[in-house]
Amino acid sequence: MIEKRTPISVFEAVESVVQYQKQGETEWVQLEDSLHRYLAKDVKADHHVPAFDRSPYDGFAIRAADTVDATRDHPLQFEVIDHIGAGAVSHKRLGPFQAVRIMTGAQIPDGADAVIMLELVKTYTENEKNYMVLKRSVQSGENISKKGEDAEKGSVLLTKGTRITPGVIALLATFGYATVPVVKKPVIGIIATGTELLNVSDPLVPGKIRNSNANMVIAQVEEAGGSPLYLGKISDQLKESFEVIEKALKQVDFLITTGGVSVGDFDFLPDIYEKLGAKVLFNKVGMRPGSVTTVAQLNEKVLFGLSGNPSACFVGFELFVKLLIRLWLLDQKPYTLTAKAILMKSFPKPNPFTRFVRAHVSVKDGIFHAIPVGLDKSGVVTSLAIANGLIILPGGTRGYQVGEHVNVLLYRDENGCEQLCPEIFQSCRS
Amino acid sequence: MIEKRTPISVFEAVESVVQYQKQGETEWVQLEDSLHRYLAKDVKADHHVPAFDRSPYDGFAIRAADTVDATRDHPLQFEVIDHIGAGAVSHKRLGPFQAVRIMTGAQIPDGADAVIMLELVKTYTENEKNYMVLKRSVQSGENISKKGEDAEKGSVLLTKGTRITPGVIALLATFGYATVPVVKKPVIGIIATGTELLNVSDPLVPGKIRNSNANMVIAQVEEAGGSPLYLGKISDQLKESFEVIEKALKQVDFLITTGGVSVGDFDFLPDIYEKLGAKVLFNKVGMRPGSVTTVAQLNEKVLFGLSGNPSACFVGFELFVKLLIRLWLLDQKPYTLTAKAILMKSFPKPNPFTRFVRAHVSVKDGIFHAIPVGLDKSGVVTSLAIANGLIILPGGTRGYQVGEHVNVLLYRDENGCEQLCPEIFQSCRS
Repeated sequence: MIEKRTPISVFEAVESVVQYQKQGETEWVQLEDSLHRYLAKDVKADHHVPAFDRSPYDGFAIRAADTVDATRDHPLQFEVIDHIGAGAVSHKRLGPFQAVRIMTGAQIPDGADAVIMLELVKTYTENEKNYMVLKRSVQSGENISKKGEDAEKGSVLLTKGTRITPGVIALLATFGYATVPVVKKPVIGIIATGTELLNVSDPLVPGKIRNSNANMVIAQVEEAGGSPLYLGKISDQLKESFEVIEKALKQVDFLITTGGVSVGDFDFLPDIYEKLGAKVLFNKVGMRPGSVTTVAQLNEKVLFGLSGNPSACFVGFELFVKLLIRLWLLDQKPYTLTAKAILMKSFPKPNPFTRFVRAHVSVKDGIFHAIPVGLDKSGVVTSLAIANGLIILPGGTRGYQVGEHVNVLLYRDENGCEQLCPEIFQSCRS
Repeated sequence: MIEKRTPISVFEAVESVVQYQKQGETEWVQLEDSLHRYLAKDVKADHHVPAFDRSPYDGFAIRAADTVDATRDHPLQFEVIDHIGAGAVSHKRLGPFQAVRIMTGAQIPDGADAVIMLELVKTYTENEKNYMVLKRSVQSGENISKKGEDAEKGSVLLTKGTRITPGVIALLATFGYATVPVVKKPVIGIIATGTELLNVSDPLVPGKIRNSNANMVIAQVEEAGGSPLYLGKISDQLKESFEVIEKALKQVDFLITTGGVSVGDFDFLPDIYEKLGAKVLFNKVGMRPGSVTTVAQLNEKVLFGLSGNPSACFVGFELFVKLLIRLWLLDQKPYTLTAKAILMKSFPKPNPFTRFVRAHVSVKDGIFHAIPVGLDKSGVVTSLAIANGLIILPGGTRGYQVGEHVNVLLYRDENGCEQLCPEIFQSCRS
């Protein structure tokens, strides 16, 4: 007896998964450990930046009013009354035709309202006094970085959900965040199913293949910002598998299984979902690869039943799991970036369902070009290694010709979208 | 006495640094620890993939010749003589009008040359024999993944210098790479200079700023694929600093200092280079920010003297340090990706030198759009946190208007270029 399943569109599947989003809690980590984490709170300026009027250059702090008459033919002479390095503060106040030697980043001394760059002046010493000679006038405020011009105290600098990059770290350091509030990573359990699976270190034997999905999914979880918890391989034995999965659900925020979701005789995950009392959101999606991708939900935990085929597994992760991880991390743009690209090689097969074609996407003259890579059968892993995008061919379309515009899912780009584009995914013919 | 320096173009500076590239050695790491490392050797297939003719679907293995007359009105009946799960092998040989029940991934039994999907047939049992009924013909080879069609044994699957992504991990797992030959990371020493620098956890005091460059550069090194070694902060004392730097050079492959390279009175790095006997490749680059960026070389080690200004420091790293890290890692595309983008906001300032404007770059309808973010002074850190690209405005150009095309350096994109584009960087007016 073969179970009949009703496929839903990719768009509907995504919408259905999003309903079960959860947000992570806050934890504090050392700034050094915060790279690629997500901010759990808005970051505010604890002080004006700059905290004081400061010099962006090495030079001399002067009073602009004194320089009005300075020209190449009529140089003006200033007495250098102090010398301040970055980090030091001058306690002298400038009078007319006085100057203070100042370093990049140093605080502008009282009385000064401009800085002239070191390269533009001459200096000399006479009778143990230092002088500086100027051949041009300067404007009031020239070469002064004003207190608060970069950021005012109390202003929101970064919003929660921001992914922490080196530039963000620079900002956090500037504002004294030696520890940083980040979103706790979701713990994602990973279980591989299938008696045909060998360990990576095993020699090949007839009929068997090495377990490539587990390591791949672990890496995908890490990249997406989750914390992978590999729970091992289970065989196609219902009772044993049920126990492993029931136990796993207590340890994780989400659970991924690979394999066992098809309609084959050894595909026992549907039975396990039933026995657990989990609500199956869908068990067939109008897409290739990955049509058997199943998502279920139990006690606020989401169970992702990804296909055992490497590419189908990969696509299922990118579409559904990554999205819930990004929502958990408060990412304001949780959807994978899509872009229009020029198809560089015809893809003549018709597309009864939405098809995701592994592709290498490159940029030339500011335009994306996408070339399907290798064979596009769902068991193929070499193309998965070369691909950096998925061409999205909507269901109900004929083949595509070289030169046509197609949409690509740029799953390796760290930028995201605020919403899923319905035009791209809605088509579904079953 | 102010030292006069002669600026070279960004292009010349990059070319000069590239001469001192070195390649890293090989080390073996566990597959689990290989994400984002770089392959040190070509990866070859240790077996055909698939290793045997296999079924991409759940269904029945049959002989195509038997199906020629099958139609909706004239269904044909096959006896099911065996039942094989993935990982198992059938020892029976198919005769005429016989079928073997087969699971996704399982080996095609002898005698069969096609698979019909489970969903397309009916099954029944009669007199303890199992039958399958077919309503259409199939072609020889239909639904069979041929041995070696994905990869032939011995073929090069991935070349050295490939960055390891989840898709690459799937491939490595498939081919039994439980340990992976990767390029040893270069150890990059980082020293921050400047008496004005407070620790991140310190309260602000007049004239001082918190040390934001060290943490930023550590994160940049990590992202680029190097191993950062933070060696602390040194003050502007020549003797002490010389000793720290001399010692540091024994521990690292490259050394980064931030600050101290300007022509100011407290900028002692030029003296240190001289005392070390290091060859200064350049100490002025025709660019903003980062004109004081200095690179020196001693005993096969490269010393990067980055500016103390956060944005100038950032740019110096992205242009010079990242490149030598990528070359060390055998990256075939070591140069940062550039793309044409539409300028979304006018930038009226003229550009006597090549200018790198911090920008937020987004993709709309497959076209890059770049908007300058925040103030563009080199001391500014808030814009650095928001930016994900640098608009490159060639030296010797006037301002740019909204809607014009500009080149952007997409430093957060993991794709790279094989070579530095000369048109973009060559212009230099001093």
